[in-house]
Amino acid sequence: MCNSPQYTIHGVHHHFGWDHSIKPVQRVAPGSSLEFECLDSSAGQLTPNSTVDDVVSLDFGKVNPVTGPVFVDGAEPGDVLRVELLSYKPSGFGWTANIPGFGLLADQFTDPALKIWNYQADALLPALFSSEAKVPLKPFAGTIGVAPAEPGLHSVVPPRRVGGNLDIRDLAAGSVLYLPVEVAGALFSIGDTHAAQGDGEVCGTAIESPMSVALKLDLVKQQPLAMPRFTTPGPVTNHLDSAGYEVTTGIGSDLMEGARAALSGMIDFLCATRGLSATDAYLLCSVCGDLRISEIVDQPNWVVSFYFPRIVFE
Amino acid sequence: MCNSPQYTIHGVHHHFGWDHSIKPVQRVAPGSSLEFECLDSSAGQLTPNSTVDDVVSLDFGKVNPVTGPVFVDGAEPGDVLRVELLSYKPSGFGWTANIPGFGLLADQFTDPALKIWNYQADALLPALFSSEAKVPLKPFAGTIGVAPAEPGLHSVVPPRRVGGNLDIRDLAAGSVLYLPVEVAGALFSIGDTHAAQGDGEVCGTAIESPMSVALKLDLVKQQPLAMPRFTTPGPVTNHLDSAGYEVTTGIGSDLMEGARAALSGMIDFLCATRGLSATDAYLLCSVCGDLRISEIVDQPNWVVSFYFPRIVFE
Repeated sequence: MCNSPQYTIHGVHHHFGWDHSIKPVQRVAPGSSLEFECLDSSAGQLTPNSTVDDVVSLDFGKVNPVTGPVFVDGAEPGDVLRVELLSYKPSGFGWTANIPGFGLLADQFTDPALKIWNYQADALLPALFSSEAKVPLKPFAGTIGVAPAEPGLHSVVPPRRVGGNLDIRDLAAGSVLYLPVEVAGALFSIGDTHAAQGDGEVCGTAIESPMSVALKLDLVKQQPLAMPRFTTPGPVTNHLDSAGYEVTTGIGSDLMEGARAALSGMIDFLCATRGLSATDAYLLCSVCGDLRISEIVDQPNWVVSFYFPRIVFE
Repeated sequence: MCNSPQYTIHGVHHHFGWDHSIKPVQRVAPGSSLEFECLDSSAGQLTPNSTVDDVVSLDFGKVNPVTGPVFVDGAEPGDVLRVELLSYKPSGFGWTANIPGFGLLADQFTDPALKIWNYQADALLPALFSSEAKVPLKPFAGTIGVAPAEPGLHSVVPPRRVGGNLDIRDLAAGSVLYLPVEVAGALFSIGDTHAAQGDGEVCGTAIESPMSVALKLDLVKQQPLAMPRFTTPGPVTNHLDSAGYEVTTGIGSDLMEGARAALSGMIDFLCATRGLSATDAYLLCSVCGDLRISEIVDQPNWVVSFYFPRIVFE
């Protein structure tokens, strides 16, 4: 955690959805450091004592809260907000769910499922999924964004040009994210913190986990940026890759179907070789497996690959 | 290189396209080790002395030759061919081209381009792209496959259920590839060797480079496999990732458009920050940058990210 953030934005100051008419909870100068208390993506509806019944009864009007917004002095449309992610302070509690209707294989996994995680918040040792499987952790915030210019309330679910629910696994401590500013003050908010996630977040949820985030906000004046970009200070998979990967492929003319085929192949493989239930394999793939595009030029067939880290079973 | 392969399949024994009526050049028992001499993907049409004019006059009826086919005794439809990639012996010569009409941004990059590489075949030090940029090498074969059941000649360009032009960067030495067998003897061939490539092979070519490959062929009897899969023995990006990445994103409801946007963003970024020409940036992205699917569940917008390794400029 940042030793002395200049501001703390408490979890009570959260909002649902993006709307540039939401009143800022804090005004800061460029270069300021802040600590944000982030709720989990259920906004506390799921707890360490929750059961699968609580997944069914989730109030979707109260999901994916973000803490903020913060007004950055001098930020104007056409600027870029520089977000330096200093550190994460995880809580030790997390959950992963299959929420019916949500996820890459929603048509095949129609029943709700819930896995409650209890991990060591300080040591951040790999978290036990079962007696056989443990998942290396790398905390990050799934939702980081600023308010869109278009008036009105916009769902927090889809990511946008101005960021939001990006769910980019590598926005971990040390990364620097650049977001296009569309309104005065930028109106920055953050939430949806995850203790671990694979590229794709294939079942629709990660290890959803409340935590605090320390970061620094700064401005780059009048520098056009079409979409968010970021820089990582070092390797992004060395918490996962030391034992290599099992990899399945999806080959065909549609990237979405390729991704689905590669994931289905991995679920089948994990069930056959590790004795997992299909649902457990699906959740496990979401928190630690990666979707990559191996080739996208050999017309008319592309290759999407799903990488599962073997260290999980070692 | 494997110390003592039991068979050598010489480069003269190559074919263009997949056809199960092509006569095998060798018959081997399961468990055999072989060395394959692989031509480059231009079948020698491009040489260290080639110029961009030679890209324009390429004979596309003579591209992507594969060395083989090899008949594996006892292989039958429904079996799996296990291909253990033992080692690669690169040649030191390579080329990367923008071939009009081919590549993820073919609509934007309509002029031919050619980069000739001269790398150290033994030490495999990063190859110089320019005085400012060098590309870490990891040799692999872009095309590894067996004959499809369907009669006739099938183009080598698209990858298929039985493998072929997979262009999977991580089929490097030490990886084990599993391919579904569709015809008696499997009829295995390999070619299209690359000294380096990023996930996606975005401009359509890698560091195309003739080299020899040592591998072991074995059978897994009657084990259904829908699509190729593989195992890597360790990390897959530690030749690239020590200095971290610059990452651009493409956000939207179509994965292909997201991939194009992320790549365009990276080309713009490299031009602006490194003074590269757009064409040079495109070629460089193809040989060392990676397309990843960061999230594929936050309806209706997905995030495709393009990762460029910062070590290239260090």
